[in-house]
Amino acid sequence: MINVAIEGATAYSSLELIQILLRHPEAKIVHLGGRREGNPHIAEIFPSLKGRLDMRLGGLEAEALPPGTDVVFTTLSNAVPMTLAPGYLKAGCRVIDFSADYRFTDSAIYERVYKTPHVDVENLEKAVYGLPEIFREEIAGARLVGNPGCYPTASALALAPLIAAGVVDPVGIIVDAKSGVSGRGNKPDPGSLYCACNESLSAYAVGNHRHEPEIECSLTRATGRPVSLCFTPHLIPMDRGILCTCYARMSSKVDLGELEEILQNAYGREPFVRLRKSPELPATKDVSFTNYCDVAVRIAKGDTVIAIAVIDNLMKGAASQAVQNMNVICGLPETTGLIGRL
Amino acid sequence: MINVAIEGATAYSSLELIQILLRHPEAKIVHLGGRREGNPHIAEIFPSLKGRLDMRLGGLEAEALPPGTDVVFTTLSNAVPMTLAPGYLKAGCRVIDFSADYRFTDSAIYERVYKTPHVDVENLEKAVYGLPEIFREEIAGARLVGNPGCYPTASALALAPLIAAGVVDPVGIIVDAKSGVSGRGNKPDPGSLYCACNESLSAYAVGNHRHEPEIECSLTRATGRPVSLCFTPHLIPMDRGILCTCYARMSSKVDLGELEEILQNAYGREPFVRLRKSPELPATKDVSFTNYCDVAVRIAKGDTVIAIAVIDNLMKGAASQAVQNMNVICGLPETTGLIGRL
Amino acid sequence: MINVAIEGATAYSSLELIQILLRHPEAKIVHLGGRREGNPHIAEIFPSLKGRLDMRLGGLEAEALPPGTDVVFTTLSNAVPMTLAPGYLKAGCRVIDFSADYRFTDSAIYERVYKTPHVDVENLEKAVYGLPEIFREEIAGARLVGNPGCYPTASALALAPLIAAGVVDPVGIIVDAKSGVSGRGNKPDPGSLYCACNESLSAYAVGNHRHEPEIECSLTRATGRPVSLCFTPHLIPMDRGILCTCYARMSSKVDLGELEEILQNAYGREPFVRLRKSPELPATKDVSFTNYCDVAVRIAKGDTVIAIAVIDNLMKGAASQAVQNMNVICGLPETTGLIGRL
Amino acid sequence: MINVAIEGATAYSSLELIQILLRHPEAKIVHLGGRREGNPHIAEIFPSLKGRLDMRLGGLEAEALPPGTDVVFTTLSNAVPMTLAPGYLKAGCRVIDFSADYRFTDSAIYERVYKTPHVDVENLEKAVYGLPEIFREEIAGARLVGNPGCYPTASALALAPLIAAGVVDPVGIIVDAKSGVSGRGNKPDPGSLYCACNESLSAYAVGNHRHEPEIECSLTRATGRPVSLCFTPHLIPMDRGILCTCYARMSSKVDLGELEEILQNAYGREPFVRLRKSPELPATKDVSFTNYCDVAVRIAKGDTVIAIAVIDNLMKGAASQAVQNMNVICGLPETTGLIGRL
Repeated sequence: MINVAIEGATAYSSLELIQILLRHPEAKIVHLGGRREGNPHIAEIFPSLKGRLDMRLGGLEAEALPPGTDVVFTTLSNAVPMTLAPGYLKAGCRVIDFSADYRFTDSAIYERVYKTPHVDVENLEKAVYGLPEIFREEIAGARLVGNPGCYPTASALALAPLIAAGVVDPVGIIVDAKSGVSGRGNKPDPGSLYCACNESLSAYAVGNHRHEPEIECSLTRATGRPVSLCFTPHLIPMDRGILCTCYARMSSKVDLGELEEILQNAYGREPFVRLRKSPELPATKDVSFTNYCDVAVRIAKGDTVIAIAVIDNLMKGAASQAVQNMNVICGLPETTGLIGRL
Repeated sequence: MINVAIEGATAYSSLELIQILLRHPEAKIVHLGGRREGNPHIAEIFPSLKGRLDMRLGGLEAEALPPGTDVVFTTLSNAVPMTLAPGYLKAGCRVIDFSADYRFTDSAIYERVYKTPHVDVENLEKAVYGLPEIFREEIAGARLVGNPGCYPTASALALAPLIAAGVVDPVGIIVDAKSGVSGRGNKPDPGSLYCACNESLSAYAVGNHRHEPEIECSLTRATGRPVSLCFTPHLIPMDRGILCTCYARMSSKVDLGELEEILQNAYGREPFVRLRKSPELPATKDVSFTNYCDVAVRIAKGDTVIAIAVIDNLMKGAASQAVQNMNVICGLPETTGLIGRL
Repeated sequence: MINVAIEGATAYSSLELIQILLRHPEAKIVHLGGRREGNPHIAEIFPSLKGRLDMRLGGLEAEALPPGTDVVFTTLSNAVPMTLAPGYLKAGCRVIDFSADYRFTDSAIYERVYKTPHVDVENLEKAVYGLPEIFREEIAGARLVGNPGCYPTASALALAPLIAAGVVDPVGIIVDAKSGVSGRGNKPDPGSLYCACNESLSAYAVGNHRHEPEIECSLTRATGRPVSLCFTPHLIPMDRGILCTCYARMSSKVDLGELEEILQNAYGREPFVRLRKSPELPATKDVSFTNYCDVAVRIAKGDTVIAIAVIDNLMKGAASQAVQNMNVICGLPETTGLIGRL
Repeated sequence: MINVAIEGATAYSSLELIQILLRHPEAKIVHLGGRREGNPHIAEIFPSLKGRLDMRLGGLEAEALPPGTDVVFTTLSNAVPMTLAPGYLKAGCRVIDFSADYRFTDSAIYERVYKTPHVDVENLEKAVYGLPEIFREEIAGARLVGNPGCYPTASALALAPLIAAGVVDPVGIIVDAKSGVSGRGNKPDPGSLYCACNESLSAYAVGNHRHEPEIECSLTRATGRPVSLCFTPHLIPMDRGILCTCYARMSSKVDLGELEEILQNAYGREPFVRLRKSPELPATKDVSFTNYCDVAVRIAKGDTVIAIAVIDNLMKGAASQAVQNMNVICGLPETTGLIGRL
């Protein structure tokens, strides 16, 4: 049995993580860390957990971890985990971090993108990017995993095999991405109000979203080719789900069958990536509440490859992918506790 | 007073058209044509019209038009209006058609795209494309107007000034478009069910949507440059609204200020197009229930121009644009009856 | 032309009010009062107003009103208007207040319900409850109008004629009410977040909502019978709309036709109340963005009368009803500027 | 291992049932019956099942069942299961029926409510009403279970303990119920379209919904008191969830603590019913995708008891309750395969 702590237990992704772990046959939640006054019971924060998890919030520091804690999930805001992870690691725990703090191998990129000094460069250099379909072998031996961003997960799974196969130009790619509102988190912000989001649709952070360099870095590492892309996110009136529509120039003449074969070869044995062959196209609802990523591909105008991927941003884009990483790290079958709706 | 008939009165866009015309100070609805059994009262079809329009559905043919009808709006399915419009024109009416039947100057393109012979080539050649911001002068003298598609309206307004100014490459443009569900019409189709659309998001008609050639044709005519683009529509869980995110390669070095100036010059005197200067970005809700199109522009990666436009697909994308065309044709101030929420 | 000021211009209901007044043929907005730092332009707060109203926020006090202001609408929070209205009245303005401050004739009830002393009892005693369908004659001569709450408007219009006719028991009535999220206002509160409200449904303030005594008072005054009812509101995942389902015991044997006749007699000449005769039932969408209230009635179990009313909470439940009151006060035709979608 | 067949596999509730059974440790799906032409693969109907269940639709008749089938779930329309169940029973299977065919002990009531003769009165008399919290002991020995309707489940769980305890009058109860759109099923009906349901709210079947007699019958049987109530359902713009607000006259003087104690005594040991003590109130989202029913109670006006229950209509209101019944019938722990999100 793996003893698990969750630090930052009041985030949307923590609710998902808790629900997954409560049914995971090899994991046991031993600690919830947070900063809410009065150390409230978790069911006060998430009423849906009433009767399912009898635990109060405790401290965030390594000292608050119960002895025997094996894995710490950190769902805290960017720049916080790097102040805490060294302590968890010293206490002998593996750490799976949901923030951007351990996603970049190069601290200079992190500092430019997140506009803050990186205070744990030592561990950053040992951290592994937790996208199991691409970096499974490195993850297996990792003590510290940077769990990928939601947009980067969908984008990388759509594009990596096509870039690696050399059939699309790694430069000049367009990623037009759409996300449900839970991607904004649960802070009471005017832009997150029901009446601001409902019955509306908008682009945001056009030309400067922080996931753009993350996608470029992970695809460059994954494919060995220097990837450059333009990423534009949009806010969609729904709770959860991401769809990325990726446009790339074809760089060697291929037909649709060959493109689908490339994806089939990449994902045919993957338990959580499903190729949706033409004429099928994936909808986010097909993967809601699951760890699946569904992908499809098309050719337009003879020379443009369109790769589409859908995920649940809170699941494969956060909580269930983190558990998939835990399974890999801990030597469990990768699908343990992750089958079906979560 | 302009006497107006609406043929196809049970469509979503007809409900919008009726509501606009009921308050239009210079228009009077004199006839509603449809094919529902028993010639029902319009309030049986649209309960929101109860007490506002006391009229039953009548026949679709020219013979059913009351004497003195000046303008006929046809909101019927593709391939139907071209069988009826010759009759309306012979009866002396102006015709504004919501279908694709009179949007292409070249019948061969229509026939290839819509996979049906065009049976009224004679009038097609005289028809004018009803996008007033671009073709206002031609519309003024027209007897037959092809009211633009919803996606083509938003796409053309976002791109035309930039292509015309020579700052972006007219070839290789990507238009990633998103629409609310009313764009699917009101046929009881499994894909239009609440539980199919709600909390979901998907691309459709990837690489083969019929609006792609319409956008190319209208932009080519508008700018004098041969435009080629790749158009991908997506279905969004909301009633109404379209957002088009258009990606084009910069073809001469310009900065954001110069791009905004091009748009300002094009639209500064337009009553229904609003430039949203950086850092503003438009949301579809900003234009819901109005004839407005809001546009914004950005530069990404130094060489990619991103132009964004939002409209209400049932309004500027259909009904209110048709009334704008009527105003132009009839020599009324273009904003008559079209100010604010409609 | 009526010169109009809006105090509290950043509320949802103010956006609606502004949109109505911009098209009202006899009204002119001369002042917007608010407390946002830096006196922002109204289009910074509501981008949909860009190009439609060129005005910045000014002060809330009577001294800030331009000379010649005729009518002041106050859309401020409860307990604020009663500190400002005396000044507006002294300046010679008529006041239409959206808060609860002037809805009760008896200050003791106000103080018990709102748990704050009433600081303007003098004007309270002269104020009129602004439900024109019931109190039209009093409103005509009023200088100060308490614009009714959203729930009370729908509830009173559903029930008043039936209680007045003596066919239902005025005691023991159940009002089960449902409202869209805009009823919560635009404060960034955790309970108003998209992901808190979407795909969910809940009752709130069960047994202690402040609209319960307001409904009882207005119905008691309207019918001359001492009304007692139990009011339960629910939050519905949609922007706007209220539906009240009212259950009352039949007190004299009547059939459905007689009940509908009572409503028809009450509302047959009302421009904004529509009786939906059986088998029709109203949906909130039938009245969205309008000043309409649609009502229907049924009998269940032989002895229970069910009266249903729908309104748009921001319109007939707030902004358009306020303009209807302005029309009455100013001697304009009551429907001026209020026809159709607003 | 229990071998399970699902007859009517294309219903929304079947998708839920399949997902639950795929993870149920003691069940195995051996057959899917339906009437779609060409016996399509289940993943063609429900793309979310791709890669999870490799099975095509087969026949509906008992002859099509694989040997060794233990339990048959029928999710077919009313009046169909009673023509098929005798065959399944003869083949030695237990039957759990989602329709109304086996919910009434008295065929006369069924025939009056459903306006069709009951063709299997013999088995009807042996059928058990599958609400385990109330009829657990009878279910344990049953060969044929009528799985309760969604509204009746929530209503009965809210009211039964209070009526049984004699603290509320069993006559004159009001049940004001609200349901998400999935309750309408997946037939392409105009009233089920996205644009018909979204941003709207309406009552339907007022005074004549077929669940009213079902609730009365089950509560009468459960409590031994003759229950009479007035049931009004409403359609809410969300996929799933039911909230029932039940109003009953207090019949012996009790306070809130005593009412909560009655519910606590009834449900304290139930794994799937959670009492939400004051000041908490349940939201449907708290129970989405689970087998939970959350209940709360309040007193209003001193003499009105308000009992509120929320369930997921597709889960505790259909699929997961059916699996709960299967667990009871088969002697498994009742929570097997039903913990958490399903």
